[in-house]
Amino acid sequence: DPALHEAMGIDKKYRSIGIMGARTGAGPHIMAADEAVKATNTEVISIELPRDTKGGAGHGSLILFGAEDVSDAKRAVEVALNAVNEKFGDVYANDAGHIELQYTARASYACNKAFNAPLGKSFGLIVGAPAAIGVVIADTALKAANVEVLAYSSPSNGTSLSNESILAICGDSGAVRQAVLTAKEVGVKLLETMGGSAPSVTTPYI
Amino acid sequence: DPALHEAMGIDKKYRSIGIMGARTGAGPHIMAADEAVKATNTEVISIELPRDTKGGAGHGSLILFGAEDVSDAKRAVEVALNAVNEKFGDVYANDAGHIELQYTARASYACNKAFNAPLGKSFGLIVGAPAAIGVVIADTALKAANVEVLAYSSPSNGTSLSNESILAICGDSGAVRQAVLTAKEVGVKLLETMGGSAPSVTTPYI
Amino acid sequence: DPALHEAMGIDKKYRSIGIMGARTGAGPHIMAADEAVKATNTEVISIELPRDTKGGAGHGSLILFGAEDVSDAKRAVEVALNAVNEKFGDVYANDAGHIELQYTARASYACNKAFNAPLGKSFGLIVGAPAAIGVVIADTALKAANVEVLAYSSPSNGTSLSNESILAICGDSGAVRQAVLTAKEVGVKLLETMGGSAPSVTTPYI
Repeated sequence: DPALHEAMGIDKKYRSIGIMGARTGAGPHIMAADEAVKATNTEVISIELPRDTKGGAGHGSLILFGAEDVSDAKRAVEVALNAVNEKFGDVYANDAGHIELQYTARASYACNKAFNAPLGKSFGLIVGAPAAIGVVIADTALKAANVEVLAYSSPSNGTSLSNESILAICGDSGAVRQAVLTAKEVGVKLLETMGGSAPSVTTPYI
Repeated sequence: DPALHEAMGIDKKYRSIGIMGARTGAGPHIMAADEAVKATNTEVISIELPRDTKGGAGHGSLILFGAEDVSDAKRAVEVALNAVNEKFGDVYANDAGHIELQYTARASYACNKAFNAPLGKSFGLIVGAPAAIGVVIADTALKAANVEVLAYSSPSNGTSLSNESILAICGDSGAVRQAVLTAKEVGVKLLETMGGSAPSVTTPYI
Repeated sequence: DPALHEAMGIDKKYRSIGIMGARTGAGPHIMAADEAVKATNTEVISIELPRDTKGGAGHGSLILFGAEDVSDAKRAVEVALNAVNEKFGDVYANDAGHIELQYTARASYACNKAFNAPLGKSFGLIVGAPAAIGVVIADTALKAANVEVLAYSSPSNGTSLSNESILAICGDSGAVRQAVLTAKEVGVKLLETMGGSAPSVTTPYI
């Protein structure tokens, strides 16, 4: 409806809007949206990260795709939903908290909008909750490989008051992958020491 | 105590304060407070909406009534508490999220304070969580009847970082009711597709 | 890592960082950190309070200690972790919410950083959730003894959108203790009226 369009502050050129959101998994949804804008004729209008996760320590998501054509908007949501499962692959969780790793060889507009990732370059995400775990594995990642820090977020800076520390990195694809995988190894061990077995939510993809 | 009165920034003319709050149900408590100020010699001092709902996607509430007389403040809290149950009537919830509808033929000072509702006019509220559901049913509502948008809120604009989209509308009472009921029908179906049966929390009142 | 150090905005003089955090118990962790800086050659770099508590109404914590020497940072974390259990002693919780009382005869740098507590003076903390309980027991505390209000926080002012009201007080140690204990008595009764038995999380220490 045009009145809602205006109240939401969306550019009128987007005649069709694709809507995706969930109570858990901000990172997986952003990465899935990144695949969707690569594959379709759409743009990412907005990415909002509520403080949610069904009682967990992190964020939910609300992501809007804009298109001139309704079939493009639909297709973007489809592609993204198909990719979400994979992007939960390096989320490891137990009662103590969770860690999340994301990696792409070529970042697109969703990673750019959310984390200022340079387009077409390798990008990685290292998340730990509670935030103390995130600080430790961010440090681990940066010591493991020569990558560039794009952003560091913590409960009162850059997150939606979530109990997470988030490190976004870019650089050479081998180095980014190495940093992410080293953080994962240390992070899973830390989590498991605190709260028992912390399996992947789906299947690891990195 | 006067020191607390001052630290809370409350006008000294309110010699008596009525306090109401809960972990869940911001909308129901605001609507109940609206009935209370209609029925008593009190004013709504403040409405605060924490990010709460016992692990759910929405808000809790802290509402203060001000009065010169202690019996008026007490009476406001009583009236409001008696009305809360009814105002939960069009909250529908399951594991996937919730939707909430509110409607009044004549908005009073609580709706005015919280949503800028014009006094004495018909007012409606359309809430969906996760926020993606809220966007869809807000659109549905505005297409269903000729009403005016008072406010649109989303996780990072106007909510307390909750995973909700909230549409506040006013207009002709028949149109507002129609918009709200259409949103409810679509919203309950969406919720039930995602998470199974989503019954009313109490008994529908609209 | 130096890149993380810089992204976190930490002064370079701290060559070693001690990290403490949890999903629940902001107050207990701050009070435990206060003991740690009293006992070691460290400083409190930052205290962040995410909106967390595993679905509860309050905050989690992320506290960083800075030191020039790694053994000092380590020792601070050790001392703090050993003190946490005691500082959970006057947290009382049930399904309806929680109250928390803290008291120290001599506040140090963590209480100073978090609540502006005067160094070396007696300090007390009175927390209630949902926030409506906090308002009531804050009032009770201030009526019970002649103490000074340092800060009053509520869901939208001074908390991380948590469903808590928090009163920080200082003054004569007998008066602070008296205010805190009176708030506890009233608060536990209120909580138990609303949600049944509300025992101490560990063992009361005040």
